Amino acid sequence: MTYVLHYAPDNASLIVRLALEELELPYRTVLVDRSVKAQTTKEYRAINPAGLIPAMETPQGTLFETAAILLWLTEQHGAMAPSPQDPQRSQFLKWLFFASNTLHAQLRISFYPDQYAGEDTAAQTALRRHLQTAHPGRVNLPGALRLLDDFYAQDPNQNRVQPWVLDCYVAAMLRWCGLYPKGNTQWFQLTEYPALLNLAKRIETRPSAERVAKAEGLGPKPFSEPMPANPPEGTAI
Amino acid sequence: MTYVLHYAPDNASLIVRLALEELELPYRTVLVDRSVKAQTTKEYRAINPAGLIPAMETPQGTLFETAAILLWLTEQHGAMAPSPQDPQRSQFLKWLFFASNTLHAQLRISFYPDQYAGEDTAAQTALRRHLQTAHPGRVNLPGALRLLDDFYAQDPNQNRVQPWVLDCYVAAMLRWCGLYPKGNTQWFQLTEYPALLNLAKRIETRPSAERVAKAEGLGPKPFSEPMPANPPEGTAI
Repeated sequence: MTYVLHYAPDNASLIVRLALEELELPYRTVLVDRSVKAQTTKEYRAINPAGLIPAMETPQGTLFETAAILLWLTEQHGAMAPSPQDPQRSQFLKWLFFASNTLHAQLRISFYPDQYAGEDTAAQTALRRHLQTAHPGRVNLPGALRLLDDFYAQDPNQNRVQPWVLDCYVAAMLRWCGLYPKGNTQWFQLTEYPALLNLAKRIETRPSAERVAKAEGLGPKPFSEPMPANPPEGTAI
Repeated sequence: MTYVLHYAPDNASLIVRLALEELELPYRTVLVDRSVKAQTTKEYRAINPAGLIPAMETPQGTLFETAAILLWLTEQHGAMAPSPQDPQRSQFLKWLFFASNTLHAQLRISFYPDQYAGEDTAAQTALRRHLQTAHPGRVNLPGALRLLDDFYAQDPNQNRVQPWVLDCYVAAMLRWCGLYPKGNTQWFQLTEYPALLNLAKRIETRPSAERVAKAEGLGPKPFSEPMPANPPEGTAI
């Protein structure tokens, strides 16, 4: 079966597309048109009841949750992750969940604070600002990136040729840290995280990533020096 | 090797303990003493740099992230999850990540809004209240529980005898919805989610759960009718 990826350019579907291209799997894409909020429609909620992008149709039914799709692909195709017997499996799993429930979850709040704090703009500002600020001993956005930088700096296999799906996931989030929310990214400088900068460069020079960047209009250095998306179809936000 | 679980009573370590008991694995526990904020110390951060409970020492090094530990245990011991070849694997993975990055992440914000919105009490209140309120088309806490209730209501194997680790995870979070933050749980009535009520009852009658409830002082019906923890050692918050 050919996988069907429900996507919007420069959305989290980008990460799944990176994995599909890296694994050289057949798939087709269906645009979720964010310009008309297609992700909120009854039709899309029949695919993903949480109303989030991506979703992917598979022989095991429709999958959603970015990291679940990524992990499922590694299991089905035996690549892009250490196997359960590999001593690095534990590292892979803990940082995959951390990426999903901390870095990605907090980025999402910083992009859409109204969805978490409601219409009170002072509360939205407090929430976004607090998440974007380093606090000693707390894991807000800068702290989460610091922990990931530490992990990658110590990763004995940090220059692996074929990336783990985790690497693709983190690279995409580095892009978003530098771009979103538009006009409110001063807190983030990728050069402060040398191992993550190295990761961004490693991923974006893969032929798979070059194909994805072209398909979604992400520019020549989509992870280390991101520019706003200029996609051939659809809109990023 | 005997696993070593770093725990505090009625913390997320409870879910890992449920899995360890269900799998009848040898393990010992080390109390993280929250009454003196032991989770914030340099010593504990050497175990889990994110400063969260649980962490577990394994032959693959120290694991943290609740769901990562759960998934790793299923992989190493071949139980409490559908196998990658099982048609239900996709369901299992997507709801496991959803539980981790949406329900658990939002619960954590509602417990500790200061860690996300800072010291502005109006912002903290706005954040907590918005998360606890149902909004059409949004996945805040009631919406997340509704999606999980829908999943369990349709789960063809919902009365499986040995639970999935996902089932234990959700059951523990139902307990916390009913107890925390203390005095601020009016938004939650388990009876509004019949399939989740059924799940809570199914888990708490397992001998494994009875042992955990005794060890951590969780009372006779820890998931369907939770009472404040009265642990033999340590404190829940």
